[in-house]
Amino acid sequence: MKIAQFGLGPIGIETLKLAATKPWVEIIGGIDIDPAKIGKSLGELTGLPALAQAKVYRSLDELLAGAGKPDVIFHTSVSKIKAACDQIEPMARHGISVVSSCEELLFPSLRDPAAAAQLDATCKQFGARVLGTGVNPGFVMDVVPICLTGVCRSVKAVHVQRVVNAATRRGPLQKKIGSGLEPAAFEKLFSEGKAGHAGLKESAALIAHCLGWEISKITETCQAMVADHDITTPHVQVKKGQCCGLHQYGEVTVGNEVKITLDLKMYLDAPNPHDSCQIDGEPALSMTISTGVAGDSATVSSVVNAAPRILKAPPGLLLMTDIGVPSFA
Amino acid sequence: MKIAQFGLGPIGIETLKLAATKPWVEIIGGIDIDPAKIGKSLGELTGLPALAQAKVYRSLDELLAGAGKPDVIFHTSVSKIKAACDQIEPMARHGISVVSSCEELLFPSLRDPAAAAQLDATCKQFGARVLGTGVNPGFVMDVVPICLTGVCRSVKAVHVQRVVNAATRRGPLQKKIGSGLEPAAFEKLFSEGKAGHAGLKESAALIAHCLGWEISKITETCQAMVADHDITTPHVQVKKGQCCGLHQYGEVTVGNEVKITLDLKMYLDAPNPHDSCQIDGEPALSMTISTGVAGDSATVSSVVNAAPRILKAPPGLLLMTDIGVPSFA
Repeated sequence: MKIAQFGLGPIGIETLKLAATKPWVEIIGGIDIDPAKIGKSLGELTGLPALAQAKVYRSLDELLAGAGKPDVIFHTSVSKIKAACDQIEPMARHGISVVSSCEELLFPSLRDPAAAAQLDATCKQFGARVLGTGVNPGFVMDVVPICLTGVCRSVKAVHVQRVVNAATRRGPLQKKIGSGLEPAAFEKLFSEGKAGHAGLKESAALIAHCLGWEISKITETCQAMVADHDITTPHVQVKKGQCCGLHQYGEVTVGNEVKITLDLKMYLDAPNPHDSCQIDGEPALSMTISTGVAGDSATVSSVVNAAPRILKAPPGLLLMTDIGVPSFA
Repeated sequence: MKIAQFGLGPIGIETLKLAATKPWVEIIGGIDIDPAKIGKSLGELTGLPALAQAKVYRSLDELLAGAGKPDVIFHTSVSKIKAACDQIEPMARHGISVVSSCEELLFPSLRDPAAAAQLDATCKQFGARVLGTGVNPGFVMDVVPICLTGVCRSVKAVHVQRVVNAATRRGPLQKKIGSGLEPAAFEKLFSEGKAGHAGLKESAALIAHCLGWEISKITETCQAMVADHDITTPHVQVKKGQCCGLHQYGEVTVGNEVKITLDLKMYLDAPNPHDSCQIDGEPALSMTISTGVAGDSATVSSVVNAAPRILKAPPGLLLMTDIGVPSFA
């Protein structure tokens, strides 16, 4: 499978490094707009001598001209659906399939049904598959609870909780959750769409879609978690009383009933990190992944592992639940 | 979706009753060899007046002549792959898709690769999809652990445990696990293939298949669980010292390493029933479904819920992991 990487930030580099370990992958090049990276070899950027021949190009066209056509592009550059669709549309027009870490692409029709419909049509016309995936969104707060409902004869409600100890995570995440800000300042940033976890509404919408629930209302709130002691990590310093993370909560109402709740806490020194969900149904099910699924490294795995599965699916803008069951590849 | 039911034992009847609750299902008839049932209405057999017009036929041909062609047949009659293939082959030749509770059909090429290959070819020739599914095999000891590996960058081993309190289950299951027999007598029955849980090796083989592991050795053992007190259920009476259930254990060796272990305990009064698995990988994952997933009712749900998913898959003899993520339908 010929692979190219779009976006050579930290996640893109990690994606390449993991992909390079797979016997079924041949990495042909990368795309990035950073002038400092264009023209360099992926060997240089990743530290993997095996990638010495693969270069960084400034655009899809230059990649196609210089390295040929990949079967799949790993797309790890943006969180917003519109930007993702604009970047992916030309790939789909060349019949190239795409696995993206774009959070809003997990359920693209939620925020931009027109862009989603157009990309889907392009995929079908040119034989491409496009998928948004990851760990969250893309797995623990959506795919896993949906999977559990597969053995249910009825489902009344789905409740999901995730607790992440952000102190064990990468620096950018520790900053994204507001570490060291005044709580009110963080909450203002969230309300302006400039901070917080992206994709919670998409997780909720995917669950509703799979269960055939028509969403009456979908809401999301976010509060700062306030440090009860001074916290120092290699990346941030937080004083008692400052923001040390977030408590984000999403809720789907169907008719007059709250049918889906997603509760996410990501903060420094969070005790007992875990992923849990409860299916209120017949049978009732309660599941816990102890210690939880750490996002960064696992997100990269989700992206790479999805590549063989999308190629087996019919062309289109796909949902995680449309393709085969997640599996190590 | 036009549905017919093949096999009108207790599971078949429960499948029909659940299917009848689905707005997307139209039940057109049933097939059974029992002369006491042939010619009766499914309304009579299920107690559902809505099924009064649907009849029981003695064969597929008579169903086709009397009720027309279903889109999907629910097949709940046998556990063995050969018998299942013989019954399903004529359905596939008519382009009818099949969801079966046959345990060995979960991974059909394990025990009878020739029959599996032939049925797969028939499916592809005539546009039919055939799937074996259930709760165990089909979900808790295979699909769920496989799903978890979807976020792993490496997997060294997969370990699964299931503990079922059989006292809460139907009578036939309580007998199948040897309740009231002398322990040695039960173990002899197991060694003759006449008792025990069907499908444990299939679960192991499905995991190995998805992880790309070539099986060097696959083994299965079964010991009687011995009652440490007298036990009375509505279905069986067990004296202290007699068999009150089973401890079945499967193991897959790849090269010289044990890579998959499946540990199943089903016995009367088992404390702390649950389904658990551990992925020894990166990240390491440990999951538990507390109280576990009770088999009977959930097996029926698995079968019915799979119908819409198989129709979206390409024709063939399918694996649970080939089709979309399990979901309530």
